[in-house]
Amino acid sequence: VADATSTKAEADAPALPATTKGERTRAAILDRAVDLASVEGLEGLTIGRLASDLGMSKSGLFRHFGSKQDLQLATVAAAGERFVAMVIAPAQSAPDGAARLRAMAERYLDYLDSFSGGCFWGATMSEYDDRPGPVRDAIAASMDAWMAELVRQSKTAGIDDPDRYAFELYAVVMAANARYRLGDHRAFDLARAALARLEAELPS
Amino acid sequence: VADATSTKAEADAPALPATTKGERTRAAILDRAVDLASVEGLEGLTIGRLASDLGMSKSGLFRHFGSKQDLQLATVAAAGERFVAMVIAPAQSAPDGAARLRAMAERYLDYLDSFSGGCFWGATMSEYDDRPGPVRDAIAASMDAWMAELVRQSKTAGIDDPDRYAFELYAVVMAANARYRLGDHRAFDLARAALARLEAELPS
Repeated sequence: VADATSTKAEADAPALPATTKGERTRAAILDRAVDLASVEGLEGLTIGRLASDLGMSKSGLFRHFGSKQDLQLATVAAAGERFVAMVIAPAQSAPDGAARLRAMAERYLDYLDSFSGGCFWGATMSEYDDRPGPVRDAIAASMDAWMAELVRQSKTAGIDDPDRYAFELYAVVMAANARYRLGDHRAFDLARAALARLEAELPS
Repeated sequence: VADATSTKAEADAPALPATTKGERTRAAILDRAVDLASVEGLEGLTIGRLASDLGMSKSGLFRHFGSKQDLQLATVAAAGERFVAMVIAPAQSAPDGAARLRAMAERYLDYLDSFSGGCFWGATMSEYDDRPGPVRDAIAASMDAWMAELVRQSKTAGIDDPDRYAFELYAVVMAANARYRLGDHRAFDLARAALARLEAELPS
């Protein structure tokens, strides 16, 4: 079905290379899907729900995603790309180690503001921890990669127990999201105070 | 509706005082509801779903809870009672301050094992942070009470910035749940290492 309709989609758009238009549409759909899932979770993200939200036809969405699970997996991947673009990549200009850790933590707090429903990962992690399958595995792999990066940079910064240190960093930014979402307006200030305390632990 | 059917329930149980039997049934229903919600969330907790899980009739459940929201609110209250019974109350034998904080954190890690689906609060907090209404408010009030107790004990322990310290404690135990649920089997060990680091911060 997806192949047949994508041929039709290409025929509709002669002005631009079909793949470019298809890619732009797909990216716009996924951008909205990541926002919606950060509010309502990934289980509520049906093709029908998303189509009506975007003012598209269901068959239009089926051109891009053959099933609800395809859509969910593509949404997790898009959320991962947003995370890399907003948190990991901008921090690359900071030197490895302490400065990189500081830059990533700060960027993460900024990044939380980019979601109408709080952190995509905070919203979907607890939704999927009891639902075995490829969606849960994709979420877990993204979180593991984030944790591994924090461990690597903690090690470079000269921390004796980088696993514990990375765990604390992860915990603080995750809690900032959770507390803020529940209405604690001091959550970001508390998180920054906790990050300052963690920074003071770094060997100078 | 609830009043009319509860009269019938009392008539079904002449051997025991009706309130006692009714209370026991209600407690058993809520015990199961807390477990189910910790796995599937509170939105999935319909009266029909719970009735079929318990082998009860829907009308039997309606004797105890007049609506889905009644059931959800009663489940949040029951989860709060379980938390107090398993985490707060057993720690009361420890002196205020540092020893109490240590006892509560240890008890919390034990308590996580009592839920088939991980922490009830971890599962429901992110589910409800975008759903304004009495259920969200009840969850937020429980979390605020837990945070307030951590702040109070941190203050008693002589910490200069008890809000930041309590935030870190809260973050560490919440992250232990989240990481463990996603398959990180070292999560509890990392949390214990983080708690030891927090303990080392306490004035002796």
